[in-house]
Amino acid sequence: MNTEQMLQEAADFLKEHDDFLVLTHVQPDGDALGSTLGLAHLLEAWGKRFVIACEEPVPDRFTFLPMNEQIRLASELNRKFTNLVALDCGDLQRLGGCSALLEENAAILNIDHHKTNDSFGKVNLVDLESAATSQIVYNLARHMRTDIRREMAICLYTGILTDTGGFRYSNTTVEVHRIAADLLSAGVSPYDIADRVFETLSWSQALLIREALGALQRDETGKVAWIVVNRELLKRVGASDEDVEGLVSYARNIQGVEVGILFREKAEGVVKVSFRSKYQVDVGEIALFFGGGGHARAAGCTIEGSIEQIQSDVLAKVRESLRS
Amino acid sequence: MNTEQMLQEAADFLKEHDDFLVLTHVQPDGDALGSTLGLAHLLEAWGKRFVIACEEPVPDRFTFLPMNEQIRLASELNRKFTNLVALDCGDLQRLGGCSALLEENAAILNIDHHKTNDSFGKVNLVDLESAATSQIVYNLARHMRTDIRREMAICLYTGILTDTGGFRYSNTTVEVHRIAADLLSAGVSPYDIADRVFETLSWSQALLIREALGALQRDETGKVAWIVVNRELLKRVGASDEDVEGLVSYARNIQGVEVGILFREKAEGVVKVSFRSKYQVDVGEIALFFGGGGHARAAGCTIEGSIEQIQSDVLAKVRESLRS
Ligand SMILES: [Mn+2]
Ligand SMILES: [Mn+2]
Repeated sequence: MNTEQMLQEAADFLKEHDDFLVLTHVQPDGDALGSTLGLAHLLEAWGKRFVIACEEPVPDRFTFLPMNEQIRLASELNRKFTNLVALDCGDLQRLGGCSALLEENAAILNIDHHKTNDSFGKVNLVDLESAATSQIVYNLARHMRTDIRREMAICLYTGILTDTGGFRYSNTTVEVHRIAADLLSAGVSPYDIADRVFETLSWSQALLIREALGALQRDETGKVAWIVVNRELLKRVGASDEDVEGLVSYARNIQGVEVGILFREKAEGVVKVSFRSKYQVDVGEIALFFGGGGHARAAGCTIEGSIEQIQSDVLAKVRESLRS
Repeated sequence: MNTEQMLQEAADFLKEHDDFLVLTHVQPDGDALGSTLGLAHLLEAWGKRFVIACEEPVPDRFTFLPMNEQIRLASELNRKFTNLVALDCGDLQRLGGCSALLEENAAILNIDHHKTNDSFGKVNLVDLESAATSQIVYNLARHMRTDIRREMAICLYTGILTDTGGFRYSNTTVEVHRIAADLLSAGVSPYDIADRVFETLSWSQALLIREALGALQRDETGKVAWIVVNRELLKRVGASDEDVEGLVSYARNIQGVEVGILFREKAEGVVKVSFRSKYQVDVGEIALFFGGGGHARAAGCTIEGSIEQIQSDVLAKVRESLRS
């Protein structure tokens, strides 16, 4: 089935049903919320009834999204639904507790762009070429010749912005920029959205970055830099897993560094090691050697032992691959 | 004169002359280098002879730009030129020592987008609506129906990317995204360029950010955050003026903060104060009160006195405007 046919099938599903439950994945990110609310604006424009729900509340950085205040927690809803639209979910497990809101034989429209999508819907609008699920919702609106008003545009732009890392990741295509141009012409203010989404640092993130930069070390060649984060530090700062994981970029991004490493003490004698490389070293192979895995430029493993010993073993292995 | 006429006049200038000196401003940024090298690729495509020069060497983060190795320092050139193209320069002073390379009655083509541009050229292709000078060079290439090859596209994309802060500033227009789409179709890899331009941190920048976050404070309301940078710290870290100036964003970007302030000891008893605000407070008025100036969201002033006294006076004034 080509893209136009898939879009038409999804449009037919939405036209033929009513009273939808619109859901996205647990721990919703910008594209999850952007595509979900974008679709909600579409349903509103078509005069359809719908309820939006999610496992968790909307994170602060996304509370500027128009209609976000209509997103309900599963616990707030005391009824079930026969028509579901799931957005940005690779499988039904990603709905978390919200899946309890479905009638047994609910009809599902599955709109997503993840490679791992298992086609769980009655209708599946899954496009692996799209940078974001919001991009697919955009295409659906254009296919249906629905006017994209400013509120809808803000949601769709936010999803595309976050899933492309601000138009930086390699999924940023010609099409992505053309859509961004069109969404700007619908009234999106790029500065305001980027400011909300990217430029906000929580107090604990600021403390975490300070501590991590304090722990930043590099070897005598300047090609390897690493950060050691122990349990005491994490406890003191109170940072989220995701924030801690992101610290490896600070090591990798130092000028002249080829491999950045984060050593993170998960428990006494258990260390998670994350690797990021720039151009030469295949850190996937290094992680594999220590029983982990990943890609050439981003990989990780979990090693048991003393943090000092692990550090010394890992650094020796990384230096070896830099020499070869 | 409309834009098409300006473009035609600039094209005529380039067609009628030869043996150009192509210059940009001192302390060249991404748009200075991107537009200059973009124009150099254009001249090359037209079979014109040219020499590119700049006051300073190309910063490390821009050495990926095709043809950057042809940029000469003024001191390396032992001849003068009668035909000049100046890019991204508001006036001739911005050329620095390179202006000594011009013959007395040199014919100048001035290509720029700065509001302050004083039309110093014989021909002035000045477009205040353009987000970047690289965008004007793009329009010139399109106007002349010159094929935009990958090398030229990389240069022009880099200039647009940096002058729009990665498609985030309010100068990011529909046109900017349309041009980005076109440059991607010419073979630009957005990830590689963003990685070089934005994701690189020098060792001294890392140390500076660590120290600044260590010095980060906020008041009991959480609406004002500030960083004090004294001379001892700056000496220890060895950071550039630009890097220090950028620290104010860390204070401003903290969640819940409305006004971020940087107190920077310039000399004994002389403190430069920089302000950034989010939504409510007009920091331009606060800076004006202390003898400085700026905009509602970004402003600054220089105050004499003890750093403790200045801190206390400025914080009192900021709290006052938060209450009003
Ligand atoms: Mn997504
Ligand atoms: Mn510029």
